[in-house]
Parts: sequence; structure tokens; C-alpha cells
Amino acid sequence: MSTAPAPRAGWDSGRVDLSSLRLRPGPVDLASHPTSGSPWFDGDKAAGKEALATVAAELSDLQERLVATGRSHGAGAPSVLLVLQGMDTSGKGGTVRKVFGLLDPQGVRVASFGAPTPDELTHDFLWRVAPRLPGPGQVGVFDRSHYEDVLVARVRSLAPPEEIERRYGAINDFEAGVRAGGTRLVKVLLHISPDEQRSRLLARLDDPAKHWKFSPADIDDRALWADYQRAYEVALERTHREDAPWYVVPAGSKWYRNLVVAQLLRDELRALDLSWPSASFDPDEQRRRLTEQDPLA
Amino acid sequence: MSTAPAPRAGWDSGRVDLSSLRLRPGPVDLASHPTSGSPWFDGDKAAGKEALATVAAELSDLQERLVATGRSHGAGAPSVLLVLQGMDTSGKGGTVRKVFGLLDPQGVRVASFGAPTPDELTHDFLWRVAPRLPGPGQVGVFDRSHYEDVLVARVRSLAPPEEIERRYGAINDFEAGVRAGGTRLVKVLLHISPDEQRSRLLARLDDPAKHWKFSPADIDDRALWADYQRAYEVALERTHREDAPWYVVPAGSKWYRNLVVAQLLRDELRALDLSWPSASFDPDEQRRRLTEQDPLA
Repeated sequence: MSTAPAPRAGWDSGRVDLSSLRLRPGPVDLASHPTSGSPWFDGDKAAGKEALATVAAELSDLQERLVATGRSHGAGAPSVLLVLQGMDTSGKGGTVRKVFGLLDPQGVRVASFGAPTPDELTHDFLWRVAPRLPGPGQVGVFDRSHYEDVLVARVRSLAPPEEIERRYGAINDFEAGVRAGGTRLVKVLLHISPDEQRSRLLARLDDPAKHWKFSPADIDDRALWADYQRAYEVALERTHREDAPWYVVPAGSKWYRNLVVAQLLRDELRALDLSWPSASFDPDEQRRRLTEQDPLA
Repeated sequence: MSTAPAPRAGWDSGRVDLSSLRLRPGPVDLASHPTSGSPWFDGDKAAGKEALATVAAELSDLQERLVATGRSHGAGAPSVLLVLQGMDTSGKGGTVRKVFGLLDPQGVRVASFGAPTPDELTHDFLWRVAPRLPGPGQVGVFDRSHYEDVLVARVRSLAPPEEIERRYGAINDFEAGVRAGGTRLVKVLLHISPDEQRSRLLARLDDPAKHWKFSPADIDDRALWADYQRAYEVALERTHREDAPWYVVPAGSKWYRNLVVAQLLRDELRALDLSWPSASFDPDEQRRRLTEQDPLA
């Protein structure tokens, strides 16, 4: 059963056709989704880098409007959250560096989720997540997230099956609340093949400057590849929503992955349709104060 | 009385001689410190942008080591904090965007301090500051800081004189504790002239996309320019320490300001003298596991 998108003709040149990477409702078969190449993009790596520069310029303008709105409207201002998931070496850290590095750090909130601490384990799995959501006017990114609690937790039986089952609904309720609070939400699975992971793990082992990114446990997890893929399939199927959608992004090519995620962010920011906050003062009057009555002029 | 540095011959080309911008112990006379131009830099704007690109590349490498150390050593890892102060329009926000935007957002912590909330006012002035310090392995920046509590608080008499007096010592004790905790600390005053401020305020008034950055209160503060300069002089004199130094940075040229702050950060990161964390595993053994015994190979 293939749940991957069918080819479409005639998408815009210079951009990836994101609708083709967006999950469709229903059962998910990850094996049918591409893990490499640059599908739905009409160009090579050089064209992709050029396209990213164009997106970066628009991102910068859109984000400044968001920051401005946050400063002016406070708690009433919207925000955007991107949830990044993927197997070890799929490029979550690189995506944060390359895509979120394009933004003004004043309006960015990065949250990385590792194994829960003993204190966190005494609470519901969402307890540690809520305080790390983006604030008004911010763009947030979760490097791993509450989804680990239905992924590794399922594969490694860290919670009873009925608790895992409960969590899918809890996640949907939680995310509905996040959206109701004014946060646009988009979820990304960085999809790689086991072969790609092997070369990336070997590259980490070959370079002492990358040893800190490696853990022997990564190989233990790798042995459970099929179980993880199945856990992802269930999680994606159960939590894909019209306004909290999943995108399955082929992550074999870094330039393509960066372009896709930047475009996704850009589209979310565009959808906010933000104008510049209007002045609560009369600019002419303030100009007069500055020029005519200014003791320091 | 001039407390500005005397010219020095023979600094490196391609970099600003930061030691000439570093405050010297003793009384401070801000009027004698330049507010514009590119002193102690042997080049024009194009050379400055080239120099910044060189610094940026080194910053990126150094910061990755810091992030790696943070991930590997946890609470024992060092960090860096840059405190940014300056009059309205002096370029604090632009510095964060342009300089901290060069870094990996995963290792950056930006904290902006506005007027204290009613809740914050019920606590000591340092109460809200401590939780916003950079974590292990992070580079933090304060956009305004605890220094506002001896600047605006002094100029506007928001606290009794004896409380303001107490705060200088409290700040030194606090910062000594921060350093003892493994955080390198550097403090920057972005120094501009009243004329430069007037043009920048007018530019904000002229551009509806910049109205959100303007407040009529900025002009009220401007009328108290001399009082603010005096408050800065006292604060700098009382809190300049060998290992928590102040730099008075001419901020009339944005490219120069960015280069200076980037160099300061680079020097702090260099001083940590970080190597890559060593592996807690045998790379050869892990390579064998991946290639010989790998069920997914």
C-alpha cells in the first residue's frame, strides 16, 4: 500500500511543491515515501541554494513583523511552532542550525527534548512540554518533542500499552489547545533510509570532532528500525490534523531538507497575514517634539 | 578629564584593537570616548565586513565546541554572557540580530529586560535576572539587564538613593557568583551621540514599519541625556572588573559595532580553550558493530 503522494505536473519552479510532501489522512506506509533526492523540486543543488536565499529574505521580513506584533500586542500575538522528529542522524540539529539560524534570534525559541529526568517522570508526559512552547511573537522549534512519548516509549515499552494508547488522544487535545492559543503548528518527520543512517554514523565515528554526537545506544536503536518506523506510522496516522499537519520530508539531501523546512516556516508566517503594528502616537507631533522643542538639538 | 584610551601604534590589521575600547579602572568621562567612526580599525566598511566574515567562521567553530562541551559535561560546562546596554536607538536589537544571528540558535540564549512587572517589583532587582542566565554550553546575551536598576532607576528616582547605592555592590557580588559558576562575562555600552539618536528617532518616525520601535517616552528620556550619561559613568566605574570588564563601543557605524561585538565574543570563546569532548566509547568497536553485525546493513 503506497500512501506517498502521486506526482503532480506544473508546480512553481524555484520552490518545492509542499502539498506533495504533506501527509494525506488515513493509514501511513513510510516505506512508500522517498528518503532521498529532491522530489517536487524542479532544479539541482545550486538552484536549491538560490531558492533558499529567496525564501530567507522573505522569512526575515515576515519574522520581523511577527516580532513587532509580539512587542505591540503581548499575550494576544500569534506564534509558530515547528515540531522536528526523525531517527538519529536524520538532521534535526542541522535543520535548526541552518533554517532557524536564518531568523532573528530575538524571536526564536529552541527546545531540545532529551530523555525525561526523574522529576519529569513523576509528571504527565506533557508537563515538561507546555513551558517550552513559543511565546507571543516567537517562532519555536522542538528538536524531538512529546512525540518521543509515543515513539521510543512504544518501541522500548517504557509505558504500558493502554498509556501509550491514551497519549495519542492527549497529544491531539494538547495541540488543539496550542492552536486555540494562537500558535500555528506544523510537524515534520525527517525521513532517511537505514543505509543513509549507517553512512552518517560511520562519518561520526571517523571524525573526533563528531564523537560527541554519537552514542553506542544509537546502534541499539538502529537494530529496532522497523519497530520505530511502525511507531512513526501509527503516531502520524493518529495525530495528523488539518491544522496540525505532518510532512514527511526526504532528508537524504541536506540542501533539499533545508529548503523544504524554510518554505514550510515561510508559509506558516505568510498565513498569519501580519501587517506592521499601527502607531499609538501622532508621528508628526513626535517629529515636532524632536526637532523644535529638543533641548539636545 | 579624558578617560578614553590613548592611540596605540601597530595593532593587527583586519581586526579592531579591543584593548583600546576596554575601560580602564578609575573615574569615567564618557564625553571623551568616541561615539562614531571606526577607531582602532585599520580599514573601511568593506574591509570591516570582510573582517566580520572571518570572525564569523571562527565563532561558528568555537561555538560548536562549546555546544558539544555542554552536551557532554552538563552542569559542569562553561558559558559566556554578553551584557548589552545603551541609550534608545544605540543598536542593541540590531547587534543581537547581526552578531548573535551568526551563531547556532541551539546554543544561544537571548534575554530582553523591559520595565519590571508588578510581580518582579515585589522582589529584589536581581530576582528576575538569575533565571535568565545562559545555561551550560550556551552563549547568552542580555538586551538591557540588571544595570537598568542603577540607570533608569537612578535617573528617575525609582528607588531611594541608599538602595541605588547598595545595588552597585550587589551587582558586583552577583557577577562574581556568575563567573564562579563558570560563565565568562563581558559588558558593552553601545555609545552614541545625541545627534545620532535624533536622526535615528526621526528615521523611525518616517517609516511606518519602524513605528513599533518608537515610544513618545523615548523623547522624555532623551531630555534627561546628561543624567543618563552620568548614571552610566557611575555604573561603569563602580562595576568594571578585570574579569567582568566594560567596553565602551562607538556605535555610530553599524558595521563597526557588529565587528567589535563579534570579536569580543570570539575572544571570550577562545579564552575557554575548548577541545572536542573525548569519546566514552571505542570507535573501532562501534564501527565493527555497524558494519559486521548490523542487521540492517
